Amino acid sequence: MKIGEIGEFGLIERITKMIDGNPDRVLRGAGDDAAVVRSGTGKLLLFTCDAQIDGVHFLSDRTSPVQIGRRAAAVNLSDIAAMGGEARYALVSIAMPDNIDVTFVEGIYEGMLFEMNLAGATIIGGNTARLPERLLIDVFLVGEVSENELLTRDGAVSGDLLCVTGKLGASAAGLELISNEQLNLGLNVDNVVMSRYLTPTPRLDASRVLARSGVVSACIDVSDGLLQDAGHLAKSSEVSITIEAGDVPIDSETVEVARTFKKDVETWALTGGEDFELLFTVAPDGKEKLFRDLFDETGLQATVIGFVSDGENGVRLLKEGHEVVGNIVGFDHFQN
Amino acid sequence: MKIGEIGEFGLIERITKMIDGNPDRVLRGAGDDAAVVRSGTGKLLLFTCDAQIDGVHFLSDRTSPVQIGRRAAAVNLSDIAAMGGEARYALVSIAMPDNIDVTFVEGIYEGMLFEMNLAGATIIGGNTARLPERLLIDVFLVGEVSENELLTRDGAVSGDLLCVTGKLGASAAGLELISNEQLNLGLNVDNVVMSRYLTPTPRLDASRVLARSGVVSACIDVSDGLLQDAGHLAKSSEVSITIEAGDVPIDSETVEVARTFKKDVETWALTGGEDFELLFTVAPDGKEKLFRDLFDETGLQATVIGFVSDGENGVRLLKEGHEVVGNIVGFDHFQN
Repeated sequence: MKIGEIGEFGLIERITKMIDGNPDRVLRGAGDDAAVVRSGTGKLLLFTCDAQIDGVHFLSDRTSPVQIGRRAAAVNLSDIAAMGGEARYALVSIAMPDNIDVTFVEGIYEGMLFEMNLAGATIIGGNTARLPERLLIDVFLVGEVSENELLTRDGAVSGDLLCVTGKLGASAAGLELISNEQLNLGLNVDNVVMSRYLTPTPRLDASRVLARSGVVSACIDVSDGLLQDAGHLAKSSEVSITIEAGDVPIDSETVEVARTFKKDVETWALTGGEDFELLFTVAPDGKEKLFRDLFDETGLQATVIGFVSDGENGVRLLKEGHEVVGNIVGFDHFQN
Repeated sequence: MKIGEIGEFGLIERITKMIDGNPDRVLRGAGDDAAVVRSGTGKLLLFTCDAQIDGVHFLSDRTSPVQIGRRAAAVNLSDIAAMGGEARYALVSIAMPDNIDVTFVEGIYEGMLFEMNLAGATIIGGNTARLPERLLIDVFLVGEVSENELLTRDGAVSGDLLCVTGKLGASAAGLELISNEQLNLGLNVDNVVMSRYLTPTPRLDASRVLARSGVVSACIDVSDGLLQDAGHLAKSSEVSITIEAGDVPIDSETVEVARTFKKDVETWALTGGEDFELLFTVAPDGKEKLFRDLFDETGLQATVIGFVSDGENGVRLLKEGHEVVGNIVGFDHFQN
């Protein structure tokens, strides 16, 4: 049996079973956006890592090194945001062919330092290695969060509302633009969707508002795709999650790119992934104050896009109130 | 300017300058075997990462998956040993083509779990990604050490003795055997050198003896090669280190492999690297008790191979008392 047959999530499930053996201080191992460990100071330590690979996660011939670095940092910072944490320390493992320009590599570090600085985190070490075919950047990030502010995937309960910060689908639109090398829809449209793909903003500030609120029951970042990530929430929380497709917020710029390339904008919003918004659940009576605080403190709007109920652990998708039947999935690194 | 022109250490130097900005809690950033951070509990946290790449660091067609996993874990555990620490938590980032067998990947995790278990460490998370051409395993390891037991590269002072645990050159001999697919020198010879290359033993137990002794002034693991690693010690400690080649301990099995393949065994011992022994400095009057404790507690012998003096920061190599003049270097991932 090949990796391609069981896919990314099949592989992760098998590996998780193998390594499952949490000692006392490990609060959570594999299975959330970051691992959680008691530090002995009352604070929890969060550990995450994510690799960005040329030709798989980014295109080095159509992206500046600073953008590559920013993205490599941002996707990891987003994992810390998904847990309600603050980013602290990063190690960077970079592997590359030996004919890469030194200034290109330095540009990548500039980009990483830019994002880490914004987040209050420091790069404290790492490793370099030779990889003949392509560039790979693997970031290990350490975060911190108070025990009572930890956000996880597994706290959603029946009756909660499903909400998302910001807008979805723009990252997929940006990827479409960059893949077609067709960047002439007008500067504003190009800028909005391109920057959402190339240099996504990890929602660390929003995450802190959610974490402190005390009313958010579960949280995950939208990296694999809304349906896929909602599925992770549903599975971890052992609940059913229903999403109304028409309620999923989409930028007008994203709509315009989709129209131009004759793509279905809803598919981008539902399965495109890599928007790095926060998907979270909240009890109905906590919603209003939370949304107001979120907007007041971060300028970011949140939207209710569905609800949590008992029933089969998974995701139901509604379009104008009618359930969409059939396979609804997101992105799988090995099966796409 | 290409990476290949400035080499691994040239690149690391440039990156280190860029990221140099230690906040209060970071005791040491890049420049030692692991980064060191105050945890707030009196203990220090150690962070390290190291990638193993098929065709660069190991050969997947001549190595079992369990061996690959053991090696990927061991090289990282060795970095924690170099700091006097105990290993705690690991994250594993694995990137691979999608036609790899699932059982092969599971074998790698088995190997990692074996070594982590021996070391008392736990794999608590990680990441999987698609890398079309080859397998890459990046391990991120968290360790812990008391502040007064931390071993670093920069404490060597004039008058100290330079010492090494175990024997050197066996890993290079194992690589020679495996590269030639000629494994018929006799089972014992093959086993000794092959296992030193394929499944090196991180010297965590020995490291704890050195750390508790209070007399070890500096320490590093022999990963790049004895001369290269002694050079790191000399540079960090701002001292001159003199090594007497004839005193470097070499296994009889390693000598036999070198003779068979008409290779210079001394070159293997001096520059082969990846033996993952501990290279350390100690004041002369602390040496005897330290060596005795080391042997009593771990069965491992240490050997004096040189001394520390003031003078030009770097390594001098003597053969039978006469200085070897010219370029004496170890392995560079980008320049070999």
